[in-house]
Amino acid sequence: MFLEAIYHRPRKNWSYAYDGRTIHLRIRTKKDDITEIYALTGDKYLWDQTMEYIPMSKLSSDEMFDYWECEAQPPYRRLKYGFLLQSGREKRWMTEYGFLEEQPANPDRLFEYPFINPVDVFTTPDWVKDAVFYQIFPERFANGDPSNDPKGTLPWGSTDPTPSNFFGGDIQGVIDHLDHLIELGINAIYFTPLFTATTNHKYDTEDYMEIDPQFGDKDTLKELVDLCHERGIRVVLDAVFNHSGRTFAPFVDVQKNGEKSKYKDWFYVRSLPLEVVDGIPTYDTFAFEPLMPKLNTENPEVKQYLLKMAEYWIKETGIDGWRLDVANEVGHQFWREFRQVVKKANPDAYILGEVWHESSIWLEGDQFDAVMNYPFTNAVLDFFINRTVDAEKFSFMLGKQLAGYPRQASEVAFNLLDSHDTARLLTLANGDKRLMKLASLFQFTYSGTPCIYYGDEIGMDGGHDPGCRKCMEWNEDKQDKELFTFYQTIIKLRKEHTALRTGTFNFLTAENQGGKLGYLREDDNESIVVLMNNDKAAQSITVPVLEQEWSNLWNGDSIQAVKGQLTVKLPAYGFALLKAAR
Amino acid sequence: MFLEAIYHRPRKNWSYAYDGRTIHLRIRTKKDDITEIYALTGDKYLWDQTMEYIPMSKLSSDEMFDYWECEAQPPYRRLKYGFLLQSGREKRWMTEYGFLEEQPANPDRLFEYPFINPVDVFTTPDWVKDAVFYQIFPERFANGDPSNDPKGTLPWGSTDPTPSNFFGGDIQGVIDHLDHLIELGINAIYFTPLFTATTNHKYDTEDYMEIDPQFGDKDTLKELVDLCHERGIRVVLDAVFNHSGRTFAPFVDVQKNGEKSKYKDWFYVRSLPLEVVDGIPTYDTFAFEPLMPKLNTENPEVKQYLLKMAEYWIKETGIDGWRLDVANEVGHQFWREFRQVVKKANPDAYILGEVWHESSIWLEGDQFDAVMNYPFTNAVLDFFINRTVDAEKFSFMLGKQLAGYPRQASEVAFNLLDSHDTARLLTLANGDKRLMKLASLFQFTYSGTPCIYYGDEIGMDGGHDPGCRKCMEWNEDKQDKELFTFYQTIIKLRKEHTALRTGTFNFLTAENQGGKLGYLREDDNESIVVLMNNDKAAQSITVPVLEQEWSNLWNGDSIQAVKGQLTVKLPAYGFALLKAAR
Repeated sequence: MFLEAIYHRPRKNWSYAYDGRTIHLRIRTKKDDITEIYALTGDKYLWDQTMEYIPMSKLSSDEMFDYWECEAQPPYRRLKYGFLLQSGREKRWMTEYGFLEEQPANPDRLFEYPFINPVDVFTTPDWVKDAVFYQIFPERFANGDPSNDPKGTLPWGSTDPTPSNFFGGDIQGVIDHLDHLIELGINAIYFTPLFTATTNHKYDTEDYMEIDPQFGDKDTLKELVDLCHERGIRVVLDAVFNHSGRTFAPFVDVQKNGEKSKYKDWFYVRSLPLEVVDGIPTYDTFAFEPLMPKLNTENPEVKQYLLKMAEYWIKETGIDGWRLDVANEVGHQFWREFRQVVKKANPDAYILGEVWHESSIWLEGDQFDAVMNYPFTNAVLDFFINRTVDAEKFSFMLGKQLAGYPRQASEVAFNLLDSHDTARLLTLANGDKRLMKLASLFQFTYSGTPCIYYGDEIGMDGGHDPGCRKCMEWNEDKQDKELFTFYQTIIKLRKEHTALRTGTFNFLTAENQGGKLGYLREDDNESIVVLMNNDKAAQSITVPVLEQEWSNLWNGDSIQAVKGQLTVKLPAYGFALLKAAR
Repeated sequence: MFLEAIYHRPRKNWSYAYDGRTIHLRIRTKKDDITEIYALTGDKYLWDQTMEYIPMSKLSSDEMFDYWECEAQPPYRRLKYGFLLQSGREKRWMTEYGFLEEQPANPDRLFEYPFINPVDVFTTPDWVKDAVFYQIFPERFANGDPSNDPKGTLPWGSTDPTPSNFFGGDIQGVIDHLDHLIELGINAIYFTPLFTATTNHKYDTEDYMEIDPQFGDKDTLKELVDLCHERGIRVVLDAVFNHSGRTFAPFVDVQKNGEKSKYKDWFYVRSLPLEVVDGIPTYDTFAFEPLMPKLNTENPEVKQYLLKMAEYWIKETGIDGWRLDVANEVGHQFWREFRQVVKKANPDAYILGEVWHESSIWLEGDQFDAVMNYPFTNAVLDFFINRTVDAEKFSFMLGKQLAGYPRQASEVAFNLLDSHDTARLLTLANGDKRLMKLASLFQFTYSGTPCIYYGDEIGMDGGHDPGCRKCMEWNEDKQDKELFTFYQTIIKLRKEHTALRTGTFNFLTAENQGGKLGYLREDDNESIVVLMNNDKAAQSITVPVLEQEWSNLWNGDSIQAVKGQLTVKLPAYGFALLKAAR
């Protein structure tokens, strides 16, 4: 046994309450080193009567480790636990104080989950598990009201986007095109910022309490939200609390009055006057962007202002959640209070943080429901688009991610493949729709909440910002109808099959030095196997299954398993979605 | 390189802000496997200009791993980082996405500490670093006011303590004997509960807003706190928020009115009537103790009541902190609000939780300042008292603990060797004062805040509760004066030498299969080497040192290092405290 490779530590992904009665226990071991693991569990105040060994099963693997999991439902909500590891005849008990060769005589030095307090259980809104998001960059989706166009607005799509040009997109434009979204099948919208700001992206907020006049006003937003709700679409807005814009009144006041400004402590001023020296502002900013002074969210006035704003828009317009820009650079204390305020205003609100890296500290129940899942994005792009990793490595990247978060976080992870902050998927795929489709099919058949970036569904392309922010193509002749149908289909499949949304996920095959991939999504209702041939040559894929009769959800074909193996021949970049007959 | 043994994950003990400017980075490697490690650090928005390799040094080791540490002071409070590991000519870079054989081309897939937000920095009260605590069980310390004795009070010390007898100890008794504490040298008192309750230990609170009449009243407490403060002694009280007593009015109301009681949701009632079936109460309790119904601290009314109580006693009497009973079974959300309330009432208040197991989730800045450090207790008892581990294993147990928490947690860990919940140290040592002294000397020369259980200093003995709760011995003829002098000396030494309180800690030698131990405490002011011979035979101990001239703080002897080695011959269970001349 490679004891040095074994890892467990109480809390985070390793031991957590999944609900008010259930604790998930996990442990990591060196890959293929351990044959069996049992969790040794019980109530410390009634050890002899409650002691129980619970078998653990493999949750996932990566290149170095296996990750094991089991669930315990302690009758009195208290759990003492350790692990019994077996490798052939060798046995070891893992305790908080290290490894033992014999079963510990009492629970004193075991690990402990002291009590499941309901308030601490990480709980996310149910609707997010069933959501398919659509991201809209409002300046570029549709111009529904030319009367609010800013000065210098260019004709829709008349030229390429630049960091500073305007095309007149607005909320009325979204209202006018709701039919497009309904036809596509999405049921949630994430808007990049709508509040008053100077740029076309609006991440430099000037007034948190007003919709930017170029987009409409509070009533327009309210109308949109009401219409969306009538048609079963949730609406999530973008809040920029890490920084304001340079034209935000308190910052203007500091620019004007310096030391005497009563807003000086709303920001992190390193020295006055406010200026930029050798490219570095004399005040903290987002990155080194002078346009975006960092807000001091520890200042009670700032905090109160922003929390009030978060509550105001929920109460006034009925929005369903907040996406939080640069959320990782804002203090945890602020987000804890933010969660309290937002969930009080709307217990079903979705709180989505922008964090590009490991995010477990925000996903423990007291801060966010989910983060923009860029580690997922990177894995999918590496395998399907950039083609820098094989199917096996891809399975390892995701296996590590699944093991690294509590299950409830994986269930509502915000899985995107592109956004206003990246090049578009079709462009990343060098225009090869087959790759784009495989990647998207994976996205829609994986754990977590998928999001489509506006226009991807009709074949829009574009490089990194500003290229990815082109005007939506409304000329039907220029829309890729075939691609649109593909997105309609994968959305429909996801909506129709609970297993694709919240079922367990397991890789069945993941080829070393190749692109063959197979995985199983399963719940009490159904078993669905997805097979993909991420290769330029046709290939047969074989995976082990328990059921005999399968039907292809894509084309209705029937397929039989032979001796517990399902074999399907797939063309280059082909795929199959097979559902077991039960 | 054993890559599977290498561990790092953002946050907790692995990457944390030590203060508003400084981030500590740590990494774990297989023992003796890696020769050099560097942290690769920089600001992600200015990578090329800020990229820097920072060498890491060994913080500690245990039987399987080495733990490495370095500090970074990122100029803009943002840090991207990875690790370069070297073993001979072999090099690997560790990133958030795994190991690379070459330096990553950009910081995108490195680990990240996004921003040091001051409010999130774990900060503890400075005074606790200099504190020497003395724990008082008030019913048994001294009877200063016979007029408040409860019915059936027994003559002081006339018989052994039982779970239910009373001897009349009270607050006036502590006031009367403050001189004893001053003479001993302690500067902080931790009282087990003083609030109205039915038992002699008072952990079954009947009235959170009243001092138990057998101890005095609010004015007596205020007088004591004032007198203590005048003499430089801090006072910490015990709050029991996990459960109330059975006579707590709201619980009495539920007993009486059942379903109709407006206090029903103050507790976790599983079924009515409230009764005990086969030893299991029909309501949640501490353990299965019917006397102690668990409080529903999620109920806003309960929360408000308890938080108000916490604030009330600080404001009314000026106490310096709270020790929190069964703190691990109360919700984290409650403790977060508790910290806000308490630190607002007294920013210098010490918040000490009772947690017997791994405690990192409570020690991240948002909940407690420290926990009752029983893992430390266990290590010291195993080595010095129970003699079940050798010096090497002892060093491994502590090495693992030091690496497992942020430095600020280790600085104020509440290091106790016994308490009202354990047998007394002298009894555990089978009356061998030499062992008791070595253990205590270690306690007083280690990182963290030492605590003496009342009476240990004069040689009181006693087994597990109720034996450890005897009446304090005030008959001077029966007090162990020699032991008292010993405690006076180690307290004085700790107070006089900053290095013993907040200096770095490193083992210099820790014998395999033996009891020879040597360690260095060091800060900018001084270097102190402590040598211990935890063995029944005299032995020579040799340790490597940098300085030449040393003097023994215990007896004034001068000692010279020879070729960078300090050698001291120690009698059985002997010790030396050597300070370098600079």
